[in-house]
Amino acid sequence: MPNYRCILAAIDLSEEAEAVLDRAVAMASSDNAELHLVHVVEPLNLAYGGDIPMDFSSVQEQLQTQAEESLHHYAKRANIPTARCHLLSGRPDAQVHELSESLEADLIIVGSHGRKGLALLLGSTANGVLHGATCDVLAVRVGQDK
Amino acid sequence: MPNYRCILAAIDLSEEAEAVLDRAVAMASSDNAELHLVHVVEPLNLAYGGDIPMDFSSVQEQLQTQAEESLHHYAKRANIPTARCHLLSGRPDAQVHELSESLEADLIIVGSHGRKGLALLLGSTANGVLHGATCDVLAVRVGQDK
Repeated sequence: MPNYRCILAAIDLSEEAEAVLDRAVAMASSDNAELHLVHVVEPLNLAYGGDIPMDFSSVQEQLQTQAEESLHHYAKRANIPTARCHLLSGRPDAQVHELSESLEADLIIVGSHGRKGLALLLGSTANGVLHGATCDVLAVRVGQDK
Repeated sequence: MPNYRCILAAIDLSEEAEAVLDRAVAMASSDNAELHLVHVVEPLNLAYGGDIPMDFSSVQEQLQTQAEESLHHYAKRANIPTARCHLLSGRPDAQVHELSESLEADLIIVGSHGRKGLALLLGSTANGVLHGATCDVLAVRVGQDK
């Protein structure tokens, strides 16, 4: 069984990102793999529906800037070059799948709260990423209910 | 980030089990972890509902024997001692969670077809195992739609 060659760590920029990042760095290091980092900013009109005619553009811009800063903070911490940091916008699962395919990643690492029941039906990023992924997915358990 | 110490590979005994097992062996070897193997036989009355008064006991016994042989074939192939092979009966996700907790496993490895949409709603083992797991879960992509 060959090692993983290209690992894509999808992080949410909360403090829980650290667990995902630490695991990704450990896996990439033991497999001698190329490590990429991605964060997907979900447009506010996607998250809050498009029915209410509100202008989210200035808030969105702020979110984008904050996300950029955070992503680079994590990348620096993990010694990941800027060229391997990806800040995207859209539906997290679709964006992660698209990027992993274009990078030909063979492993996606994502945080998971281990939700079940209603929380699962409402959707989680780990769940969305797992389904439809064309490569292996490692769900790293995060959160206080660990 | 410490290595994984105890890995539980959940296999379905189809030819797809090989990919899961190969990955589990590679991970256990690189992390120097204890590797356990589990297969869960789903009782026919669970799979086919309990409303029809049918006696499945002889078929169930046959399934159990075949599962035992298959599990030991895979265990031998991967050099896993019998004491670390677990043949259980019940709901796959619940049984895998229970065993992983009693073993204090820190990683569960399971096969995933990457199903989405309706197939996801109907449930997959990877999905069931991911949700509610108290440790990390690695879903290894298997199947022709890889």
